[in-house]
Amino acid sequence: VAQSLTANVLLALGAVPSMTVAAEEIAAFAARADAVLINLGTLDPQRRAAAAIAVSTAIEEARPWVLDPVLVDRSPLRADLARSLAMRGPAVVRLNMAELEALAGAPCNEEQVARYARELRAVLALTGPTDLVTDGERRVRIENGDQLMSRVTAMGCASSAVVAAFLAVEPDPWLAAFSGLTVFAVAGEAAAARARGPGSFAVELLDALANADRQMLQSRAKVS
Amino acid sequence: VAQSLTANVLLALGAVPSMTVAAEEIAAFAARADAVLINLGTLDPQRRAAAAIAVSTAIEEARPWVLDPVLVDRSPLRADLARSLAMRGPAVVRLNMAELEALAGAPCNEEQVARYARELRAVLALTGPTDLVTDGERRVRIENGDQLMSRVTAMGCASSAVVAAFLAVEPDPWLAAFSGLTVFAVAGEAAAARARGPGSFAVELLDALANADRQMLQSRAKVS
Amino acid sequence: VAQSLTANVLLALGAVPSMTVAAEEIAAFAARADAVLINLGTLDPQRRAAAAIAVSTAIEEARPWVLDPVLVDRSPLRADLARSLAMRGPAVVRLNMAELEALAGAPCNEEQVARYARELRAVLALTGPTDLVTDGERRVRIENGDQLMSRVTAMGCASSAVVAAFLAVEPDPWLAAFSGLTVFAVAGEAAAARARGPGSFAVELLDALANADRQMLQSRAKVS
Repeated sequence: VAQSLTANVLLALGAVPSMTVAAEEIAAFAARADAVLINLGTLDPQRRAAAAIAVSTAIEEARPWVLDPVLVDRSPLRADLARSLAMRGPAVVRLNMAELEALAGAPCNEEQVARYARELRAVLALTGPTDLVTDGERRVRIENGDQLMSRVTAMGCASSAVVAAFLAVEPDPWLAAFSGLTVFAVAGEAAAARARGPGSFAVELLDALANADRQMLQSRAKVS
Repeated sequence: VAQSLTANVLLALGAVPSMTVAAEEIAAFAARADAVLINLGTLDPQRRAAAAIAVSTAIEEARPWVLDPVLVDRSPLRADLARSLAMRGPAVVRLNMAELEALAGAPCNEEQVARYARELRAVLALTGPTDLVTDGERRVRIENGDQLMSRVTAMGCASSAVVAAFLAVEPDPWLAAFSGLTVFAVAGEAAAARARGPGSFAVELLDALANADRQMLQSRAKVS
Repeated sequence: VAQSLTANVLLALGAVPSMTVAAEEIAAFAARADAVLINLGTLDPQRRAAAAIAVSTAIEEARPWVLDPVLVDRSPLRADLARSLAMRGPAVVRLNMAELEALAGAPCNEEQVARYARELRAVLALTGPTDLVTDGERRVRIENGDQLMSRVTAMGCASSAVVAAFLAVEPDPWLAAFSGLTVFAVAGEAAAARARGPGSFAVELLDALANADRQMLQSRAKVS
């Protein structure tokens, strides 16, 4: 469901996406990438095998990788797979609160999110009405965005891809996740201001991402 | 092909879609849903298995389900599978005339559509220039819509999803199908009035669905 | 990734797309088509099998077929499969320069592209800032288009589908590829003139394809 929007978000930002689900070729794809995104959106035996190979390749080639444990709160199969991947050293795990609590196995307040980040030794990029990005030590909240973002499919997947794109150029994963989610939320807010509904919002979001610049970020970002 | 538009149509209406094709998890997904849509758009061994499990889960959990026998007129494999699913008690079968005749195995006029609905003990929601919704006893024709709806892919699939969304809140399947298709057709007509072609039409349709209200329906609906 | 845009491009042009990846039914689909497009975008064992069957059916039924060797430059698996399909008599191979050089196994200037077309006995439709269409004897360059076309996913796949649609009505494959790519590039240029970014560009492109006419082509086409 998410691939088309995700690819278009990356292209709008000037990144170059390559996508595959085939186990035979995923190592070749991952080895050429500057950053790798593992999205568990569609899970079948083939994609599960491909995800494991992509992670192994990213580790061997020392490429940063992002885990997006899509809908782990909906099925035990997803939660088990996501938990085992989360322990293999992703730079960033991007997810929402329901997914985080399914992954952590318990309800989480902000302190517990930070503790879980330290446990995984990964940056947690938690998106929702307010985004929270933490590596366990540093924390930042992003207040931008618009509720229209929840009325378009694959927005979470797209935000994970933006984080992966920033990881390709920014070696500090906390800074990459923080910057990526800020750009995405600010562009979403700008798009919502022009949109008449979720259809025009999705169109405006791609335009806003392509036209985002330092001045727009500096004038609009609400982070603390 | 259809998943992204279908998900966005549901989100525009305020429904919450979950989609999967994996046999291992489809029962968990279907058991949590208020209504289930079985779409035969892409058929491979895995999806065929998943469709059968989803139907069994919907029956066990007493969830209403919609069958969309996509392109059954194009291959015998699809027709056989769709026929066997249609006999397992869907609340609604949403399809076009070519698909209905392939399913029924004979040309159909309005009387024969009604007879086939009685035979299946299901509501038939037949879409086309004029939509017909019948449970074999009650019948209604919906004259709204626009020919631009046939110039965008997955419109049939999206209309089936709208019917499923209405089934989640309206226990009478005939009324759910009638209401869902009316909202969809009226929104399509409103969108076409603003569109300059099929690209802008698809955008306007999502906006119109999100903004549809009682007044718009009452002033525009042409049903008999 | 590409299926939704590809289907919508074909519908915008008035063509009727049918898509499947299932080996069991692809022969039935291909036998009914006026032209067949083999797109290697997603490669898994099932799709590889389906592609081979579709080619065999196209050959048996004497249907023209287009090969789109997507991303053959990214993995040896793709290059091997694409090369073996390219030798089975496609009417047209639509690709970019990186894909062509991976397929041909060597860097290519315009003379070498023409020689490779003669070797394959196929029309090569090479897209990029300038498109080149050659059957080894005839050559034409198309200068239309806009760089926004590279900021939307699946534009290459969509251009291949346009070529296939023209092949369904024009028996000369060189003329079909030339006409199809010209319409696509001219529509892209017209869309870019109205767009504010890649989101609105994709919407405008579908509208422009649906509204393209002889006058627009004659006034805008830059071919030599």
